[in-house]
Amino acid sequence: MTPLLLFPLLVTRSADPLDQMVNRGLTDLGAYRMLTSLCTEVGHRISGSARSERSIQWVEREMKRMGLSNIQRVPCKVPRWVRGDVERATMVPGGKLSVLALGMSVGTPKGGITAEVIEVKSLQEAEALGTRGKGKIVFFNRGFDPTKTVTFEAYGGAVDQRVRGASAAAKSGAVAVLVRSMTLAKDDSPHTGAMGYSPGVKKIPAAALGIKSADRLSAALKKGRVKVKLTLSCQNLPDVPSANVIGEIPGTESGDVIALGGHLDSWDVGQGAHDDAAGVVQALEAVRLMKALNLKPKRTIRVVAWMNEENGGRGAAAYAERAKTEPHLAAMESDAGGFMPRAVGVTASKLDIALDWLPRLRRLGVEQIVEGGTDADNGPLEPLGVTCFSLIPENQRYFDYHHSWKDTIDKVNPRELEFGPLTMASVAWLCSETGLNR
Amino acid sequence: MTPLLLFPLLVTRSADPLDQMVNRGLTDLGAYRMLTSLCTEVGHRISGSARSERSIQWVEREMKRMGLSNIQRVPCKVPRWVRGDVERATMVPGGKLSVLALGMSVGTPKGGITAEVIEVKSLQEAEALGTRGKGKIVFFNRGFDPTKTVTFEAYGGAVDQRVRGASAAAKSGAVAVLVRSMTLAKDDSPHTGAMGYSPGVKKIPAAALGIKSADRLSAALKKGRVKVKLTLSCQNLPDVPSANVIGEIPGTESGDVIALGGHLDSWDVGQGAHDDAAGVVQALEAVRLMKALNLKPKRTIRVVAWMNEENGGRGAAAYAERAKTEPHLAAMESDAGGFMPRAVGVTASKLDIALDWLPRLRRLGVEQIVEGGTDADNGPLEPLGVTCFSLIPENQRYFDYHHSWKDTIDKVNPRELEFGPLTMASVAWLCSETGLNR
Repeated sequence: MTPLLLFPLLVTRSADPLDQMVNRGLTDLGAYRMLTSLCTEVGHRISGSARSERSIQWVEREMKRMGLSNIQRVPCKVPRWVRGDVERATMVPGGKLSVLALGMSVGTPKGGITAEVIEVKSLQEAEALGTRGKGKIVFFNRGFDPTKTVTFEAYGGAVDQRVRGASAAAKSGAVAVLVRSMTLAKDDSPHTGAMGYSPGVKKIPAAALGIKSADRLSAALKKGRVKVKLTLSCQNLPDVPSANVIGEIPGTESGDVIALGGHLDSWDVGQGAHDDAAGVVQALEAVRLMKALNLKPKRTIRVVAWMNEENGGRGAAAYAERAKTEPHLAAMESDAGGFMPRAVGVTASKLDIALDWLPRLRRLGVEQIVEGGTDADNGPLEPLGVTCFSLIPENQRYFDYHHSWKDTIDKVNPRELEFGPLTMASVAWLCSETGLNR
Repeated sequence: MTPLLLFPLLVTRSADPLDQMVNRGLTDLGAYRMLTSLCTEVGHRISGSARSERSIQWVEREMKRMGLSNIQRVPCKVPRWVRGDVERATMVPGGKLSVLALGMSVGTPKGGITAEVIEVKSLQEAEALGTRGKGKIVFFNRGFDPTKTVTFEAYGGAVDQRVRGASAAAKSGAVAVLVRSMTLAKDDSPHTGAMGYSPGVKKIPAAALGIKSADRLSAALKKGRVKVKLTLSCQNLPDVPSANVIGEIPGTESGDVIALGGHLDSWDVGQGAHDDAAGVVQALEAVRLMKALNLKPKRTIRVVAWMNEENGGRGAAAYAERAKTEPHLAAMESDAGGFMPRAVGVTASKLDIALDWLPRLRRLGVEQIVEGGTDADNGPLEPLGVTCFSLIPENQRYFDYHHSWKDTIDKVNPRELEFGPLTMASVAWLCSETGLNR
């Protein structure tokens, strides 16, 4: 593209705090520096793992480096699920399938489970199998609806199979389940994610299949009977101690807290770059900019790196418990990837006030302020009267990487990532200045 | 991210043409199939090259395959610039620099040019060198302003160095110029692009430096005198015949044309995937969807694959000449990369009508309708009274790849790309139905 107009180079210096943060952030790209460090020095960091402890120390180090106050851990106990060494699925006839155990699944016996496969498209269909399901491996193969323009809606329309498929199939006597990966990508990299067992139903192993593997299995089933041998060494160990990490810039006029955060834990594959190292470093970058520019907010602006979003929400629960005795004005979460912002969600009662800010946020990609604002980690704060905000970025690429080996630093654009902290810093600053009053 | 709500899977069948195109497009992802074919079977395709001829044949084949009518070439003569085999810059002391000749530059003598380097930040500074510039290689090193939130503004603020640097330096007696690449990426892949010579000024060779090379050269110059040996084998050959390609769905009620297009030529590096194979396949996909769904527009909807946008605009001029005798209602261009749409530009006089369409376009990512609508290829049509539209996608990643070896198919997301044709098809259909009247 050749621009028809040449814009003059303007070096603008502005006293406006939002302008200062935008100019500094786009020059430093600090979020990407931190993301690179967290992704490459720590890597993936599932709750309760040694890497998870290293990631907590990493956050503490970054907070100290930028001079935050009151750096501390907010303790919680977390589930300890370990994948183990063995993860294998073989089609007979047909050969290897690309597979990843679902998080919180039980393993198979050491010699694996070999059984005939039966394909279904829904929980209802699995439950209705009755005796036909007995001794079978049930294969959930309802894909994302590609016609949903918002990929989170396509995810929402399919993820019940991952979360509740095992117990639905177990009710019909199934011995294991395979679930088509939760993605619109057309490759063979499987996507893990949380599953759970219904009380009183037999716990059977569950694994995600790569999309090409799911298509191959489905094609084979159209031709005749297919057995699969599935071997998973994953197991659930006793809960272990862990923690959220917090650090803040104390308010000059009030200690009321404006929390900014993402979750520090990830699944145990890839680097958890978009999910959700991005959210953590965006929150850190937002306060780093304030410190670097010596901006002093009226109210306390705090970073929260929540623990255990992926498989328990224990960190969010512990943080909300603490917040009962610590007045919070607002809490903004980023947990939809480090892509270019498109909107900000906000608790309904403050929608009108946040709408006043839209002209200040448009240059950052925020075209809409929408009702909402809660996600997994700030959600428990809303019932306490805390105004919740969520960063809503462009969503088309998110599920290409989500919970898979592909969620790595090279999938993140440094500038797109930086517009997130600029949005979070702007929202936090406006909350701080206005107290969410007109 | 864990969604708090699970959306039911809805299979929607709709008689509304826009809904039908959206559902079909997101299911087929036809633009990406075509993009893969054009990028891998033809590759880059500079005006006048053998590959350029192959790309014309490729478009004709796709148009035939989808059953378009009146497939034909609109001839034009194009410049023929060839890079040649040798392209080398060596710093003394300091070693190799990463370099790409600028398009339309003359070459150096076979043995290269060895001269002392002098760094400047602007055309004015180069012209003011006077006798100090004599015999020197002038190094233009004003980078993009990273604080511009819209990268096209940063480009507009720097590209004068690439386009007019050589003649500015030649006025002070310089023997060659090196120009910092037009990008915000921090790697060492140089970005080429068009340059031109002022009449009556000596033509001196011009090349782009990779960002890391530019930084190394600048650092070396801070320490002392530096010579560079620059060898470029590029040359300008006589004009050759070439053509735009057009094909259409004839209107059921009127032959008035609604043109959709991008430019088929690219620079001679990478695959020209975002610039601008994306625009060509998006226009093709828009009409493919109409054909596949048997939608019959009232007015003629045409695809135009323009030739020679990058170094001459000859195709656009030839097409505009033809349009003088062929009534056009509208012309929409896509030439800013195959990223997620964010806005649509439109000729000012039709802004109010296009604004009525915004609610239909929001789901496609189009949050704004803005005044504008012309780009390099549809621009010459506006003076003829044609309403111009431009597709304005997310822009942060564009200049990472633009005019470099990195502009390849792997930088394009299949779904993000598809929202472009859905926007173009929607705009074309609404133009066709309404005649741009209320």
